[in-house]
Amino acid sequence: MKNKGEIQLRVRYSETDQMGVVYHSNYLNYLELSRVEWLRDLGFSYAELEKNGVLLPVVHASLNYCSPARYDDLLRIESRVSEMGGSSIEFQSEIYNDRGVLLVEAVVRLVCIQSGTFKPIPVPSYLRELI
Amino acid sequence: MKNKGEIQLRVRYSETDQMGVVYHSNYLNYLELSRVEWLRDLGFSYAELEKNGVLLPVVHASLNYCSPARYDDLLRIESRVSEMGGSSIEFQSEIYNDRGVLLVEAVVRLVCIQSGTFKPIPVPSYLRELI
Amino acid sequence: MKNKGEIQLRVRYSETDQMGVVYHSNYLNYLELSRVEWLRDLGFSYAELEKNGVLLPVVHASLNYCSPARYDDLLRIESRVSEMGGSSIEFQSEIYNDRGVLLVEAVVRLVCIQSGTFKPIPVPSYLRELI
Amino acid sequence: MKNKGEIQLRVRYSETDQMGVVYHSNYLNYLELSRVEWLRDLGFSYAELEKNGVLLPVVHASLNYCSPARYDDLLRIESRVSEMGGSSIEFQSEIYNDRGVLLVEAVVRLVCIQSGTFKPIPVPSYLRELI
Repeated sequence: MKNKGEIQLRVRYSETDQMGVVYHSNYLNYLELSRVEWLRDLGFSYAELEKNGVLLPVVHASLNYCSPARYDDLLRIESRVSEMGGSSIEFQSEIYNDRGVLLVEAVVRLVCIQSGTFKPIPVPSYLRELI
Repeated sequence: MKNKGEIQLRVRYSETDQMGVVYHSNYLNYLELSRVEWLRDLGFSYAELEKNGVLLPVVHASLNYCSPARYDDLLRIESRVSEMGGSSIEFQSEIYNDRGVLLVEAVVRLVCIQSGTFKPIPVPSYLRELI
Repeated sequence: MKNKGEIQLRVRYSETDQMGVVYHSNYLNYLELSRVEWLRDLGFSYAELEKNGVLLPVVHASLNYCSPARYDDLLRIESRVSEMGGSSIEFQSEIYNDRGVLLVEAVVRLVCIQSGTFKPIPVPSYLRELI
Repeated sequence: MKNKGEIQLRVRYSETDQMGVVYHSNYLNYLELSRVEWLRDLGFSYAELEKNGVLLPVVHASLNYCSPARYDDLLRIESRVSEMGGSSIEFQSEIYNDRGVLLVEAVVRLVCIQSGTFKPIPVPSYLRELI
């Protein structure tokens, strides 16, 4: 079992702003990609989960922006599960550029809900075991 | 009956890129806002339409970028229906800044489809009459 | 002196995701609009600030997502300065829908930096006095 | 010399809308990624070009949306230069999903301009030769 996932991704032009750096909301997108790709590595598809009626919306996010990412930077994102509740999963992540500089540290908490009702449900056991 | 709609909107920071101007894909978002607000002026809610199972995806878009919009610019967007087909509606639009400079001219064609099947359906008669 | 700013804004179609609600990163954009419009009400233009070589990037953001916003919802955002440091300004905000439901509560901290060097500088006195 | 570039990219959750498909403006972002990666394959960095004071904004875009992309789809994008003017470069592209279905066909025209003045300049000879 891996307890840490890691992805690389390249900053897109559309993600920069006129300050010449990545606009701050985009890091939340990067963090999601990191979580999804890690789950894929564990043999688990988030898209499949949704087809089975389970949604995983974000209920809390906290980000420290330490240094800016720039256009065409190749970022490395590390994520790990830092806490499991009955219905919730919390991830801790760091985003680095390709010179190893820490850009963002973040905590994101998700909650399992039923599509349709949007009511919290327990984390599915197959997902709980994987993590 | 109005045959022309007009809205104003202000450029957001997140819509700029490191060139210091609005990133080109954002104008498609602006054009949608223009169509939706015009319909609202006609007493017609796009959100309601979707709740009734009718979707209006874009099937064609053509844009000429004449001059760039910048952060905090107050834009004026004019849109009018330029063609009605059995299932499709075509809008012609122009985007101006607050000094009257033409920034973008665009043609966008939408098609009415059934949610669920995604099959084309005739433009609903209440919408056709409004336009 | 107003110690609270308030704006209204309508959810755009492009801001929704396939869960049928606003994608979570977009609230950071909404919060920025709230800060900027409040400053404008105080007679202060963020765009002008940048032209004078002062940037105000976000260095920390913390968000609790309580309830989802949906397409075409008319949101109300309240923001107030909750802390002033030497170089930093912290805002506390709440986002409500038009039925008064609390959607998001957030804290965002900005830091004044010099464009070019990206080094922290004291909050300009004219801004400090306004706030 | 390659006269065709090809990339793969995966649809992000944030790029979907409540119709359950990719929001139409995002394809313009995908097309840019395709152009940039192709140039990178040719040994040419768009980021470097900008550092040398040459910008390549989009002046025209025309898109036919044939079929929708969905969350987590692995897209394939083909791009080729379809026309070279004195200052302009036109790309023709197609976007396919991983079942080979054509989703979008597009023409995008860029123009070389001088950063600072934003005036058109001839396509740099090293770029012209590469293409």
